[in-house]
Amino acid sequence: MDIYDLQTPALVVDRAELQANLDAMTQALPGSRLRPHIKAHKTTELARSQAANGHCNFTCATIREMEGMARAGLGTDLLLANEVLDARRLGALAESGARITVAVDSPETVAAAADGGVKEVLVDVNIGLPRCGCPPTEAGRIADLARGRGLGVRGVMGYEGHLMMVTPESDKARMTEEAMALLLAAAADVGGEVISAGGTGTYAINTWATEIQAGSYALMDTAYATLGFPFQHALSVLATVVSVSAGWAVADVGLKSLGMDHGNPTIPGAAVWFCSDEHTSFAPEEGHSVKVGDRVRVLPAHIDPTVAMHEAMYVVDGDEVSDRWAVDLRGW
Amino acid sequence: MDIYDLQTPALVVDRAELQANLDAMTQALPGSRLRPHIKAHKTTELARSQAANGHCNFTCATIREMEGMARAGLGTDLLLANEVLDARRLGALAESGARITVAVDSPETVAAAADGGVKEVLVDVNIGLPRCGCPPTEAGRIADLARGRGLGVRGVMGYEGHLMMVTPESDKARMTEEAMALLLAAAADVGGEVISAGGTGTYAINTWATEIQAGSYALMDTAYATLGFPFQHALSVLATVVSVSAGWAVADVGLKSLGMDHGNPTIPGAAVWFCSDEHTSFAPEEGHSVKVGDRVRVLPAHIDPTVAMHEAMYVVDGDEVSDRWAVDLRGW
Repeated sequence: MDIYDLQTPALVVDRAELQANLDAMTQALPGSRLRPHIKAHKTTELARSQAANGHCNFTCATIREMEGMARAGLGTDLLLANEVLDARRLGALAESGARITVAVDSPETVAAAADGGVKEVLVDVNIGLPRCGCPPTEAGRIADLARGRGLGVRGVMGYEGHLMMVTPESDKARMTEEAMALLLAAAADVGGEVISAGGTGTYAINTWATEIQAGSYALMDTAYATLGFPFQHALSVLATVVSVSAGWAVADVGLKSLGMDHGNPTIPGAAVWFCSDEHTSFAPEEGHSVKVGDRVRVLPAHIDPTVAMHEAMYVVDGDEVSDRWAVDLRGW
Repeated sequence: MDIYDLQTPALVVDRAELQANLDAMTQALPGSRLRPHIKAHKTTELARSQAANGHCNFTCATIREMEGMARAGLGTDLLLANEVLDARRLGALAESGARITVAVDSPETVAAAADGGVKEVLVDVNIGLPRCGCPPTEAGRIADLARGRGLGVRGVMGYEGHLMMVTPESDKARMTEEAMALLLAAAADVGGEVISAGGTGTYAINTWATEIQAGSYALMDTAYATLGFPFQHALSVLATVVSVSAGWAVADVGLKSLGMDHGNPTIPGAAVWFCSDEHTSFAPEEGHSVKVGDRVRVLPAHIDPTVAMHEAMYVVDGDEVSDRWAVDLRGW
């Protein structure tokens, strides 16, 4: 089977590039220094590859991701790095033998964790991104509340998400140190051993966290590719050219197969004009003529929402399709 | 069951508002004057409501939408308003008794339709949007090619998609007339009875088409709502407030549950700051305080890709959940 046998649009993952990305990250952050964020791929088969590379503790964004990882036998140490108000499904997972930790940042989320049967939490601390997380000065109080409800408090987490794309690197390093100073202060109040933070944008410079929650490094996207990391585009959306006009062509990939929050995708050798529901209009550059029926590889601007739109990703070696991995952690 | 029993994020459809939208469209374009585009909702149960309102011929954007509609018994007259190069699945549908028509705009797509066992086509004509469709002057030649391959040529289609949001209305009307003049000229060369065109943005002014392919009118979104049509927001994404800080709050809806190509969603009574994968940070307006655990209804900027991210939509009467409709036409 090769890529011309695939129904398009289809996610395709280059096996060698994926493995190179996993290897580069293992070299930088081996074992428990990385807690891969599986929201970036939502695929237990890909998580197995990460585990084979020494990364056996995982970060999740949704309850369903937690459930799927546990069911796949990847529940050694699962962190839901997100607040929930109904934790019963997480409690059931803990009962079944997975190690389940959930983020808490308020009395309500502490109560939800305890009521739901979860045993362990991290206190989520706001370190500059206006999203979830308690103020650093409140972290100790939240930890006390949690312990008062019988919960084990493993430590703290924070996310310097507002710094991922900062340039130059020297500014990013300084700002990351400032953000992490807030998290370290909270950690001192909270206790525990875990200081979980970071992402692909700061994996190399956040030396204060005990573990980094990077996810995008495995597959990459055009947004992160601007930062010059040692990670390659391992994922693209395979499309078929369905129409060619004088000056432009149309591929059958669009708003329903591409995450668009970071803008248009990239087609090497072409200028992308715009995307519609099931189409991308693009102008081939001089010397890159295309014809109806050609296959093109479209690089998404943002990997995470792109992957979540597809039922499966096809693993390829060049044009050969060697595997089909279900994107089995979609939904909530 | 009420909305507080739903796992969030969840699509919710207000039954009365949906019915009001369907009724308003039936009044404007009864029976075969409308060919609803089911890409806007991907839900056969919703299509059944449209059929009950007199709209029994449907437009689709993908092969899977065609298959699902036929399987649901809604295959009286299905148009795939899109080019395909492997039409075998469509041919199989025609064999099974559904009436199947597919758009063609090139010798390659004519050959694909014939080789795949499709019996009827429309010639897709470019009337100003740089996407699919042959030049108007080529339409007669494509029709001849199709007839030469034994295909029935039902007429033409075009899409004045570049005009949907034009203001003022007088400019839109003039430009639509100009675009439709191209399609009418092509129709004269092609023959057949069908002149299929239009969308929610031009449904009221495109009086040249024999049928309008509108889809968004049924559920609506904030982009189309700016145009002042008699259609209401029938769909929202229900979210739970999972975190509240001084000055902002966070709802558990984000890039994986909202189509973002038209920009941020809207939360009535609040200013939306930004969306992350599973979060929306927003600032409640004066007098609209929120607390952890509150449910909020988030209005997507673009309905079509939003719906495609969800497994189901819940039909509500106020806060009561009366039905669960599978979004059963997702994927390709």
